[in-house]
Amino acid sequence: MQITNLTVRDIRFPTSAGLHGSDAIHADPDYSCPYVTLATDTERLEGHGITFTLGRGNELCVAAIEALKHLVVGRMLESITGDLRGFWFGLANESQLRWLGPEKGVIHLAVAGIVNAVWDLYAKTEQKPLWKLLTDMTPEAIVDCIEFRHITDALTPEEALDILAANADTRAEREAELRQIGLPAYTSSAGWIGYSDDEVRTRCRNYLDAGWSWFKMKVGRDVDDDVRRAGIIRDVIGNNGRLMFDANQVWSVDEAIEYMRYLAPFAPLWIEEPTSPDDILGHAAIAKAIAPIGVATGEVVQNRIMFKQFMQAGAMNFCQIDSCRLGGVNEVLAVLLLAAKFGIPVCPHAGGVGLCNYVQHLAAFNYIAVAPSLENVVLEYSDHLHEHFNDQVVIKNSRYQLPTLPGYSITMKPESLDVHEFPNGDVWA
Amino acid sequence: MQITNLTVRDIRFPTSAGLHGSDAIHADPDYSCPYVTLATDTERLEGHGITFTLGRGNELCVAAIEALKHLVVGRMLESITGDLRGFWFGLANESQLRWLGPEKGVIHLAVAGIVNAVWDLYAKTEQKPLWKLLTDMTPEAIVDCIEFRHITDALTPEEALDILAANADTRAEREAELRQIGLPAYTSSAGWIGYSDDEVRTRCRNYLDAGWSWFKMKVGRDVDDDVRRAGIIRDVIGNNGRLMFDANQVWSVDEAIEYMRYLAPFAPLWIEEPTSPDDILGHAAIAKAIAPIGVATGEVVQNRIMFKQFMQAGAMNFCQIDSCRLGGVNEVLAVLLLAAKFGIPVCPHAGGVGLCNYVQHLAAFNYIAVAPSLENVVLEYSDHLHEHFNDQVVIKNSRYQLPTLPGYSITMKPESLDVHEFPNGDVWA
Repeated sequence: MQITNLTVRDIRFPTSAGLHGSDAIHADPDYSCPYVTLATDTERLEGHGITFTLGRGNELCVAAIEALKHLVVGRMLESITGDLRGFWFGLANESQLRWLGPEKGVIHLAVAGIVNAVWDLYAKTEQKPLWKLLTDMTPEAIVDCIEFRHITDALTPEEALDILAANADTRAEREAELRQIGLPAYTSSAGWIGYSDDEVRTRCRNYLDAGWSWFKMKVGRDVDDDVRRAGIIRDVIGNNGRLMFDANQVWSVDEAIEYMRYLAPFAPLWIEEPTSPDDILGHAAIAKAIAPIGVATGEVVQNRIMFKQFMQAGAMNFCQIDSCRLGGVNEVLAVLLLAAKFGIPVCPHAGGVGLCNYVQHLAAFNYIAVAPSLENVVLEYSDHLHEHFNDQVVIKNSRYQLPTLPGYSITMKPESLDVHEFPNGDVWA
Repeated sequence: MQITNLTVRDIRFPTSAGLHGSDAIHADPDYSCPYVTLATDTERLEGHGITFTLGRGNELCVAAIEALKHLVVGRMLESITGDLRGFWFGLANESQLRWLGPEKGVIHLAVAGIVNAVWDLYAKTEQKPLWKLLTDMTPEAIVDCIEFRHITDALTPEEALDILAANADTRAEREAELRQIGLPAYTSSAGWIGYSDDEVRTRCRNYLDAGWSWFKMKVGRDVDDDVRRAGIIRDVIGNNGRLMFDANQVWSVDEAIEYMRYLAPFAPLWIEEPTSPDDILGHAAIAKAIAPIGVATGEVVQNRIMFKQFMQAGAMNFCQIDSCRLGGVNEVLAVLLLAAKFGIPVCPHAGGVGLCNYVQHLAAFNYIAVAPSLENVVLEYSDHLHEHFNDQVVIKNSRYQLPTLPGYSITMKPESLDVHEFPNGDVWA
C-alpha cells in the first residue's frame, strides 16, 4: 500500500469562551489541532493524526507538517512498518529542520502529528485498535520501533527486551481484565482556575455523584485562592476522594516548596508542574522537600532524553506522557519502558482535543505489555469535544472502556472539521 | 518613537554547495535567517534583527515572527525600553503560543529575532553600538532586563546586582583594553567534516600563517577518521596551538566517554556537544570521566533554565551562548550572569550567518561589565558571508575588533537581501 498524499487542516475549537481549560498561565486556550490525513492507493483507507495546541500558533504546526510531508508521501506503508525506528529518526532529525529543535517545540509536535497518522493507518490496515496492534507485537518488534540514541545510559535495547519478555506470557490475563473493567480515570473538569467557587462545588458534587473519586484542581494564581478552593473540593469529596494539584509551571523552585506547605494539609497525591518543565534539578529538589506528596510532570516534557533525566534524578514520581508532545507512538514507547525500568507509574496527560482518544490506547498497552500494575495509575479525563470523533471515548463507572474500532480513535466527523476549520469555518468566519 | 510596522523576509544562502558548515549530523546546511525590519515613525530609523537556521524550516521561523508581530507593532519604543523584562516575558509567554515551546524551538527562535531587532533599534536610537549601550547601563537597569522566574534557586536579582556592581568601577579600563586589542577568536573554518584531508591541512596552514592559534575540528562521523584528522591538525599547529573538538550531539553518553579515550592524546581543550544538548546529567557524567578535558555546550541549549542546570550539575566547563537560540539579548544577559556566578568562561557560538556580528557585542559587554577575565575566553569565528553586512566584522591578529557603528551590526545590504530571498531571489529562482 502506498501513501499517495498528505493533507493537513487547521482545526480550532473556541473553548476560551467558557474558560474551560483555564489555568495559572494559559488564561484562554482554544483547543486546536492540525488534522493530518494520509491518502493511500487503497480505496477508503486513510490514516488520520493530530497534534495538539492552544489556538494561536496552530498554523505553525500545520506549516511544519507541510515541511516534513516529503518524507512520507510516495512511501510504501510496508517500507515504513518494516523500519519504524529508521522512519522515526528520519522525521525527527531531518538534516536542516532539526536545527529548529532538535526533537522539541513546533517541529517535534509536527513529527507527532505525522507519526500518529502513520500508526492509525497501520492499525486500520491490520483491522485492530492501536492498543491491540501493539500488544500483539513481539517484544523484539516493539524494541525495533524505538530510537535508543541518547538514552542507552539509562535503558539499553536488551533491558527493554527483558522488560517486555518478562510480561509476555501474562498479557492475555490483563487484556481480559481491561476488556471487563477498563482503565481508571480522574477528572480535571471540576477545578479550572477560571471557574467560580460555586461552579467548582457544583461540578465536584456532580462528578462525585456520577462515581468519580479522583479530582484535579488548578493552583498557582494566588495561594490564598488556592487554599480556599482546595478546602471546597476536599469538603465535597471527603477524605476518601483523591485530590491532585496542578500549578502549570508558574512557581520558582523555592516558591513551590513554600506554597506546598500551605496546600499539604489537603493531602494531595501529587503536585503537577510545580515549576518549569525544563527544570529537572528543580523538580528533584521539590520532590525531596515535599515527600510523601509526589511530583507529577510530563505534558510539556519535550522528549525521551528529558524524561530519562527526570527519572534518573528522582524528579518525577508520576510520569505524565503526552501523546502529541513526544514524537508520536514510537517515542512514547521509549518513555513507557523507561518508566517501567525506574518503577514510576504512568498517568497520561489528556483532555484538550483528541488526547483522551489517544492515551487510552497507550495506557492499555502499557498495562498489558510493559508495567503490569495499576497501583497509582490513573488517566486524565476532560469532558468536552468528544462529540466530534467517530470513535468516541467511552467512560463507565469513571473508567475508560477499551476502544474496539480499528485505528487510533482520532478520525473526526467531516462536518466537525468543516465547521471548525480556521479561519473560514462557520465557527470562526 | 513608535514602532509602526514589522516585516520579515526569508533569506537563505546556498552554503551546502561547498560543504562549509558540514558536521556529523548537519550534512548540508544552507545558512539562513528570517530578517526582521522594525519600521518607525522617525525618518530613516529602522531596527533589524535575525534568528539563525540551516535552510529548510526558515519559513517556519518567519511565520512564527508574524504570529508574534501584534505584540510589537504600534508600541512606543520608550514603553518597551522602560519595561524590558515585561516586554520579553510577554513575547516569550504569550498565553496560547507558549504551548509550542515554552521558551524553546521555533517559537523561541522567533522571539530572538524580534528581541534582537528591538535592541538594534534601541542602540541606533542612542547612537551607540549595542555593547556600548549595555556597558553604559547601570547595574540596576541591566537587572531590570532579566526574567528571573525559574532561575532564582541559582541566581537572585540581588546576586546579579552584586556581580555587576563589583565590576562597575573598573569598566573603563577593560573597555580601553578591548578598544586596543579586541577579543580572542578561534576558527572553525579549517575542520568541517566534509573537507578532504588535504583541504584541512592547507586551511590549517593558512590560518596558522595568518596568526591564528585556536582551531576547532568536527568529529563524530567515524572515530578512525577523527583520529587521523586530529593527527593532521595537531601536526600542522604544533603543541602550542590550541585544539578543540566538536561532536555535534551524535554520541550517546557511554560512546562519548569511550571515543574521547582515542582523542585525548591530541590534547584538546574541550569536546563540544558530545551528546544530546538536552542531556544535563549525561554531560555531567562525561565531564567527570574525561577531566581535565573540558565539556563545552550551549549553541542548542534552549533557554536560561537549561543553562542554569548545566552549571548547577557541573556539566558545562565552557558556556557557548547562542545569540539567536536564547530569546535574544535579554535572556543572554541572564546566562552571562549565571556563568559569572558559577565561574564558567563564556565562549560564544558563532559562524553561520550574522552570528559573529552579534556575539562580539555580547562578549565585549560580558568582559567589561560581568566577568573581568579573558582566561579561557575565546569567540568562534567562521570566515564566510561577512560581505553581506553593512557593519562587517573586523578581525585583526585573530582577534575581533570592537564594532563602532550604532546598533547590533546586523543590518544587511539591500542587494544581498534581494538576491538571497527565498524562493524568488536570483540565487534560488
